[in-house]
Amino acid sequence: MTQPLRAATTEAYDTDSFIRQLVEDRLIIPTAVPGTFGRAAVFEDVLNRFNDLITRVSADEPTEFCTFPPVIDRSIIERVDYLDWFPHLCGSVHSFCGDAVEARVLSENVHANAPYGQLLEPSRVVLNPAACYPLYPTLTGTLPAGGKLVTMVNWVFRHEPSHEPTRMQSFRVREFVRLGRPEDVAAWRDGWAQRSLSLLQDLELPAALDTASDPFFGTAGTAMADSQKSQRLKFEILVPVISEERPTAVCSFNLHRDHFGHVFDIHLPDGSSAHSACLGFGLERITMALFKAHGSHPHEWSPKVRQLLWP
Amino acid sequence: MTQPLRAATTEAYDTDSFIRQLVEDRLIIPTAVPGTFGRAAVFEDVLNRFNDLITRVSADEPTEFCTFPPVIDRSIIERVDYLDWFPHLCGSVHSFCGDAVEARVLSENVHANAPYGQLLEPSRVVLNPAACYPLYPTLTGTLPAGGKLVTMVNWVFRHEPSHEPTRMQSFRVREFVRLGRPEDVAAWRDGWAQRSLSLLQDLELPAALDTASDPFFGTAGTAMADSQKSQRLKFEILVPVISEERPTAVCSFNLHRDHFGHVFDIHLPDGSSAHSACLGFGLERITMALFKAHGSHPHEWSPKVRQLLWP
Repeated sequence: MTQPLRAATTEAYDTDSFIRQLVEDRLIIPTAVPGTFGRAAVFEDVLNRFNDLITRVSADEPTEFCTFPPVIDRSIIERVDYLDWFPHLCGSVHSFCGDAVEARVLSENVHANAPYGQLLEPSRVVLNPAACYPLYPTLTGTLPAGGKLVTMVNWVFRHEPSHEPTRMQSFRVREFVRLGRPEDVAAWRDGWAQRSLSLLQDLELPAALDTASDPFFGTAGTAMADSQKSQRLKFEILVPVISEERPTAVCSFNLHRDHFGHVFDIHLPDGSSAHSACLGFGLERITMALFKAHGSHPHEWSPKVRQLLWP
Repeated sequence: MTQPLRAATTEAYDTDSFIRQLVEDRLIIPTAVPGTFGRAAVFEDVLNRFNDLITRVSADEPTEFCTFPPVIDRSIIERVDYLDWFPHLCGSVHSFCGDAVEARVLSENVHANAPYGQLLEPSRVVLNPAACYPLYPTLTGTLPAGGKLVTMVNWVFRHEPSHEPTRMQSFRVREFVRLGRPEDVAAWRDGWAQRSLSLLQDLELPAALDTASDPFFGTAGTAMADSQKSQRLKFEILVPVISEERPTAVCSFNLHRDHFGHVFDIHLPDGSSAHSACLGFGLERITMALFKAHGSHPHEWSPKVRQLLWP
């Protein structure tokens, strides 16, 4: 409990040359737990400017903007079967609900370095695992005839502690969710995949589009992933950040068919379940990809890149 | 598990006339769990503009900016005795670490509406309960001679579900942390208390400064709160939002003496433990105070207020 944080930190951040560079150039601030580093001023500036760029390039379609907190209603992840398919990634929030006697036991356990999780109870919230989840229950009912387009910046959580800098436990996603008729939703997803690819290439990133699958848990999960891939339900844009051989997914484009429409009772004027698709820009990953490709000093980036981010 | 979210929502948001107004004017988006509503575009715009105003008015002092994720190293709250003094507010993050057989039990429990918290294990992170906490372990060592001033925008969590709109479970704080010699830190805290009061009054908010205490748990907590108050360790700026009689704390100013300097081994060049103070603007609460005082339509606010927020 009183282990030296600084020592843990140094060791962790020495395992990868890119993260060491990010630390040395004061872009991120090391913390003792993998995947929870602080973001320093220049890092945040680039991240916010990329987010603003997305706002500008998406301004041609009427889009509702909102932000949800990093914690969401537990029943959402229960209803969408998240704990069946991604139990290993969940972050369930537990709190202390006891009296003074139980509080003393809690305190004693904490200070004796003894387990105390059993003294806490699951609360009504979990960490949000996917930027679009909190939106769906707010849309229960009938959509307008043309459907709906919503954009958000939300913090999401994945329990996958790693010293690999792009594999964070907590990060921000700039998300767009399109709901409507199946053909409109699919065309929107496909159009944005191309549009996003062009945008990242305009930022002089070596970006490539590919079909992809989610990290479903276990043996049944492998079959789910294969099915998702063969049906081209998920695309990702990949950019080399940590290695050339295993580029990092910085953006994903997902067709949900009527999964969320069905679970959350969102329908079209004709009474059928709404289809939906989402796209998410991993804001920290894109920021890291920019630093990797162009160096740690944004004032030295090419005029073309600077013009897009500092218009 | 499949209870109608919309029904829960309506009931919850009908208990208070101000929150009903925020919903009707599309400033916030109701969710089923109290204190976790979505923030819509106009709400976010005002919140961000107030945050930008703080950046401008604080530009006269060299300040490091950073952002930390909503989850932090569990050992931080253990080391600062948070679970002794505020066990009822904590958000401990638990995850599933089992195999395929245990995953099946988890899934069965979820779908049978049976308890499943006992199948999860405490992870190395907790929700951040106070905006300044993640900073201290990054400062272990010797500070520069003049001390240090750092500012952050962080999401914080308090497990206090309530239908009262200003009592959120998850919200953003614009935080400043000053570390250094006792007299410098105290002068900085006192100066900012006056400066913040003037700023909020310039925004035409009926703001007042008062001594305050933290919501310590239990009987010993009452004594702690009394001591904190008599030593004037905590000030708050209060603005009526929900009621005139019980105004809402929108900003707090806290002297920590050498508590964090001692716990995290942060010292001054002479080897003594650094003292510290923090101030936090509750960004959602200030945004709500502005809507309460000036109405739901920012384009109708007074020229003076608009000039400050839309310079």
